[in-house]
Amino acid sequence: MSDINYKIMAEIGVISEDKAGWKKELNLIAWNGRAPKFDLRDWAPDHAKMGKGITLTNEEVAQLQTILNEMNLK
Amino acid sequence: MSDINYKIMAEIGVISEDKAGWKKELNLIAWNGRAPKFDLRDWAPDHAKMGKGITLTNEEVAQLQTILNEMNLK
Repeated sequence: MSDINYKIMAEIGVISEDKAGWKKELNLIAWNGRAPKFDLRDWAPDHAKMGKGITLTNEEVAQLQTILNEMNLK
Repeated sequence: MSDINYKIMAEIGVISEDKAGWKKELNLIAWNGRAPKFDLRDWAPDHAKMGKGITLTNEEVAQLQTILNEMNLK
């Protein structure tokens, strides 16, 4: 995945961290110079490597928030 | 990806749909007979094909909800 060009514009939050130090994070990332999108993905310590993940537009994040709040998880 | 064994235990919500009918969905999926986990992923119409995505534990979904609510998106 090293030839992908990306820039982490904002680190919004860490969702979890495993024993090996990999973190599941929500960030704002500009991929290949395009407009930044929300990005939910696993990262190695110091963002040295990235795992599989998913990008989300503002509308998608708002819809995800609505769905999660309707699930009344807590 | 056809040799992966999965079962969609619950379709929780559709986050978005593109012009080709692919949907970004939040589901509860049991992968390879393991305990179901939350799963955020793109799907072709009728779940005929799956795209890249991410699995989330109950704790991770709760933490994601907290982060999203703190962002006051609306």
